[in-house]
Amino acid sequence: MTHIVPVDIAHAPYNIHIGRGLLAQAELIVAQLAQPRVAIVSNETVAPLYLPQLKQVLEAKGVTVQAIILPDGEQYKTWESLNQIMDALLTERAERKTSLIALGGGVIGDMTGFAAAIYQRGVPFIQIPTTLLAQVDSSVGGKTAINHPLGKNMIGAFYQPKLVLADLDTLSTLPDREFSAGMAEVIKYAFIDDPEFLLWLEANIQGVMARQDDLLAYAIERCCLNKARIVAADEKETGQRALLNLGHTFGHAIEAGLGYGAWLHGEAVAAGMVLAAHASQALGQLAAADVARVTNLLLAAGLPVVAPDLGAARYKALMAQDKKVDAGKIKFILLRQLGEAYIGELPESAIDAALAAGCAAK
Amino acid sequence: MTHIVPVDIAHAPYNIHIGRGLLAQAELIVAQLAQPRVAIVSNETVAPLYLPQLKQVLEAKGVTVQAIILPDGEQYKTWESLNQIMDALLTERAERKTSLIALGGGVIGDMTGFAAAIYQRGVPFIQIPTTLLAQVDSSVGGKTAINHPLGKNMIGAFYQPKLVLADLDTLSTLPDREFSAGMAEVIKYAFIDDPEFLLWLEANIQGVMARQDDLLAYAIERCCLNKARIVAADEKETGQRALLNLGHTFGHAIEAGLGYGAWLHGEAVAAGMVLAAHASQALGQLAAADVARVTNLLLAAGLPVVAPDLGAARYKALMAQDKKVDAGKIKFILLRQLGEAYIGELPESAIDAALAAGCAAK
Repeated sequence: MTHIVPVDIAHAPYNIHIGRGLLAQAELIVAQLAQPRVAIVSNETVAPLYLPQLKQVLEAKGVTVQAIILPDGEQYKTWESLNQIMDALLTERAERKTSLIALGGGVIGDMTGFAAAIYQRGVPFIQIPTTLLAQVDSSVGGKTAINHPLGKNMIGAFYQPKLVLADLDTLSTLPDREFSAGMAEVIKYAFIDDPEFLLWLEANIQGVMARQDDLLAYAIERCCLNKARIVAADEKETGQRALLNLGHTFGHAIEAGLGYGAWLHGEAVAAGMVLAAHASQALGQLAAADVARVTNLLLAAGLPVVAPDLGAARYKALMAQDKKVDAGKIKFILLRQLGEAYIGELPESAIDAALAAGCAAK
Repeated sequence: MTHIVPVDIAHAPYNIHIGRGLLAQAELIVAQLAQPRVAIVSNETVAPLYLPQLKQVLEAKGVTVQAIILPDGEQYKTWESLNQIMDALLTERAERKTSLIALGGGVIGDMTGFAAAIYQRGVPFIQIPTTLLAQVDSSVGGKTAINHPLGKNMIGAFYQPKLVLADLDTLSTLPDREFSAGMAEVIKYAFIDDPEFLLWLEANIQGVMARQDDLLAYAIERCCLNKARIVAADEKETGQRALLNLGHTFGHAIEAGLGYGAWLHGEAVAAGMVLAAHASQALGQLAAADVARVTNLLLAAGLPVVAPDLGAARYKALMAQDKKVDAGKIKFILLRQLGEAYIGELPESAIDAALAAGCAAK
C-alpha cells in the first residue's frame, strides 16, 4: 500500500510517495513532466540495479531518456561531478522544461537537485531515493549541495523537487552498512522532537533492522511526516529547521577530518549525536542514563558511537566552518531532554568535555 | 537628486537608487546588512577606481570588509572565477549572514549574484553597477549566471539583490565603447514596448551620448522603471519577461561564435536587434523604413549594426543552444512594430533572409 505524505511548502508543494513497486509506475512521474523528456542522474552502483527498468517504463510512455552516470561515493560530491552533469546536459541540449531525475542515495540526490537548481537557472526535478538515508531525510525538503575542500555542503541551493518516490523495494539491495547509516537519520527524528517515536524505536529496533516490511514502512513514513512538518514551517532554515542538524556539526567535522567517504554520512551523524548528548550532559541537561539510551539505540542499529580522536583543536577548527556559525559563534543542536532538541551555544569547557567523553582514546 | 525605483517582486521586494554620490552614502548599504560584514567582489579595472572609497565609508561605519578582485572581461565569467569567489569566502569564513556586494559591470554583477545564490545555499547581496549596461539592465531583476563553453549564461539562478545602487558618478570613467554597449540595452527597452521612449531617444540621442547629466539620469530611470515593471510581473521568465531578450538570441550566437570578449555583450545585442528587425521585416511586419530607424538609432549610439558572417549553419547551431528553446524550437523575440515586441518562431527562410541582410559579406 502506498502512503502519500504532502510537503506543504507555500510556493512549491509536492508529495512524497512511499510504497512498493513505485519504480514501475511511470504515470506518477509522467504526470509531473513539463515535456516528455528527462535526464536521469545515477551512479555506477545504483544504475545497473534500477536504471534499465525505469528507463523502459518511461520510454514506453513516450518519454525521451538521457542517462548520466557518476562514480559512487561522498568523495565525488564535487564541482567536477556537477560540471560533468552540466556538460552532459548541454551536449545533449537539455532544455528548460527537461526534468532531471535523481536515482540514488543522498549524494546523487543532493548533486542532481543542485544541478537542476542552476542548469539554465532552474529546471524541474524529481527525487527517487534508493537508500534509507535518502528516503527519510535528504530527498525531502529541497536542500541541495556539493562539498568544498573547506567544508561539507558549502555550495548549494534550496530547491524543491516536484515529486519524491520512495520505493521500499530498492532497500532490499541496500548493504547493511548503508542501511545502518540511514538508521542514524531515522533515530535523529526521535531525539529531536518525537519522544513517542523514540519509545517505538526502542521497542522495535530489532524488527526494523531485520527490515520487516510493516515496521520499516511505518518508520519511513513517520520520518517523512516529521521532516515535511519541519521544512514546511521553515523552508530556508531561518529557525527551527536547524534542529534537523542534530549530530551534524560534530558529524561534518568527523567526515571532513577523516576525508570524505571514509565514514558514511550517517555513521558520522551517529557519533556526532553521541557527542551532542555528552555536551548536553556537560550542561547538566541530560543524565548519564539518557546518554546511555542514545548510545544503546544507535548501537542496536549497528552504528558507531565513539568518534574518532581528531584532537580537540582540529574538531574546533573544522566546526568553525559550519554553516550555522553566526558572528564567529557556532550554533549547536543540543538536547534539553530526549525528544526535545534546541539551538544553542556551547562553552569551550562543554565542547572539551564532550570530546573527552565521546572520542576514541589515542 | 536621487530617484528610487521599487522592484515589487512578491517574496523579495527591493529598491533601485539612481543618483550621484551614492557610493559615499554607506548608510544605504548598512541599513540592508544582516551583520556588519561584507565581501566586495570587483575586478582589476573597477577596483582601483571605487573600491578604496567604498571600503573606507563602510569601515567607518564599523563594517568588516573583505575584497575579492577578479580579472576583467566576459571571458572570465566562468566556473573558475566562481570557484575563486567560493575559495576566498570559505578561506575567510564568510558566514550565512555576510553580504556580498557586486562592484562592477554586468559580468561582476552576474557572477557575484550567482555566488551569493549558492554560497552556503544563499547569502544576501547588493548590486553596485558601475557601467551603463549594468545600471539599466543586468543589475536589476535577479538573473545571475556564468557562461559555459557550450552557451552563454547557461548556469545560474534567479536570485534577487537586497538593494541596487546606480551611482551616475561611476559612469564618468566609463570608456566610450562600454558606454555605447550600455546604450544597446537602453535602446532595447524602447523597441520592446515603449514607443514614447523611442521618440525621446531619437530626439535626444546626441545629448545622451554626450552624457548630459539630466538626459542620462532620465534615460536610466526610464529603463529601470521598464525593467522593474516587467520582472515584477514575471520573475522567473515564464512569459513576458522573455521580451527583454530582444536581440539576445542572435547576440549570444555572435558572442559565442566570435569567442567571449571579442565583442562586448551590448555590441552583440545591437547587431542582434538589427537581425531581429530584418527577420521581422521578412515576416512582413516591419517596413524597410522601420529597420532603418533601428539601424540609425544604434549607429547614433556608436554601435555595430552589421553582424559578423559566421555562416548561417553556425548561427543556427549556436542559437539551438538558447535557453528559450522548447521541444527543439527556438523562440525568438520579434517586432510587430517598433515599440511592440512579441515571442514567436521563425521559419528557416526568415532566419536565412535576416542573416543575408544583416551580416557582413565575406
